[in-house]
Amino acid sequence: MIKLYNIPMSGNCHKIRLMLCFLDLDYTTLDLDLSNREQKSEAYLQRNPFGQAPLLDDNGTIIRDSQAILVYLASQYGGEQWWPKAPNQLAEISAWLSTAANEITHGPALLRAHHLFGREINQPMALATTQKVLNIIDAQLSNQSWLVSNTMSIADIAIYPYIALAHQGEIDISSFVHISTWCARIEALHHYIAMPGIDMHTGEQ
Amino acid sequence: MIKLYNIPMSGNCHKIRLMLCFLDLDYTTLDLDLSNREQKSEAYLQRNPFGQAPLLDDNGTIIRDSQAILVYLASQYGGEQWWPKAPNQLAEISAWLSTAANEITHGPALLRAHHLFGREINQPMALATTQKVLNIIDAQLSNQSWLVSNTMSIADIAIYPYIALAHQGEIDISSFVHISTWCARIEALHHYIAMPGIDMHTGEQ
Repeated sequence: MIKLYNIPMSGNCHKIRLMLCFLDLDYTTLDLDLSNREQKSEAYLQRNPFGQAPLLDDNGTIIRDSQAILVYLASQYGGEQWWPKAPNQLAEISAWLSTAANEITHGPALLRAHHLFGREINQPMALATTQKVLNIIDAQLSNQSWLVSNTMSIADIAIYPYIALAHQGEIDISSFVHISTWCARIEALHHYIAMPGIDMHTGEQ
Repeated sequence: MIKLYNIPMSGNCHKIRLMLCFLDLDYTTLDLDLSNREQKSEAYLQRNPFGQAPLLDDNGTIIRDSQAILVYLASQYGGEQWWPKAPNQLAEISAWLSTAANEITHGPALLRAHHLFGREINQPMALATTQKVLNIIDAQLSNQSWLVSNTMSIADIAIYPYIALAHQGEIDISSFVHISTWCARIEALHHYIAMPGIDMHTGEQ
């Protein structure tokens, strides 16, 4: 059975829950006890020295990092639809995985962490990164439905959550028409699951 | 012929030059004219809307992002030695590609950009990220020669350059024994090529 070490309000964890649902895989979630800093406990750091969720345990195969878990699930369970063989397609997907790890993490995800959880950040820098990456993604989606070629891929799943959550970082994506349509396209998919609701005033679920 | 849009003193470009040499592939480099901001010109932004190097053009197949280019070269030209089939190995490699895009970019690479090129950064945050990631990588290399399993992979190539250049960001890696040994191991490889020398006082080559 697949076990997902999970933080319900983490966009990175949402990526994995989405992917598991799209692949229709059985899994259990183990929600980390953040109030007791379980993610920094010795037992957890042995599994993931970065002290972060998500972390996947598939019958003893342990994978850290949300992008890497998407690669694992796609290549292990997704077949060619989710894990193409063509090097140029793999590379295009990988480029968006880098964008998720870099610009999305240090743009919209950081602004959300600031506004929702009070994390200290360099706001002008995070805003500039966000504006740049939203412009690029909107342009990319202006003449295609998905980030890479004609099918949904893990690139879309890696990029989607923190863009859909951007309003929690006080970013209004409604003027990015193609991004908004793309979000709606993902949210209309059969196996789509939403993020749990968050009380904006307390940061609690 | 493979064309590499290149910035000689960029660690991200060094990754690609290393990989091309390790694969013994013919290529030409086109050095961007940074003084005329060629990387932000309309012609270049059409090829890479992020306005960054490296960018690879392999007979019309254009790939942006250093991690993605490593994936492309490994899967297109590297055979199973460079692009394993096992999903858990692909995922472990991908996790380090994320680390390269995230923590390495926002740790040692950012400190180098600050000290070498005067880029404004949040120094305490970049130092904390650097310390954390160096500790994790040193522990990872304490009982294995390479970041993933027993062979060199694109994970090593993605992580190496900005660690080898960390001194230019005033980070001393000599106390990280396993990292130092790993750097020496890479630098002793038959096809290894060094970064061009940089005059630390002017930032010029």
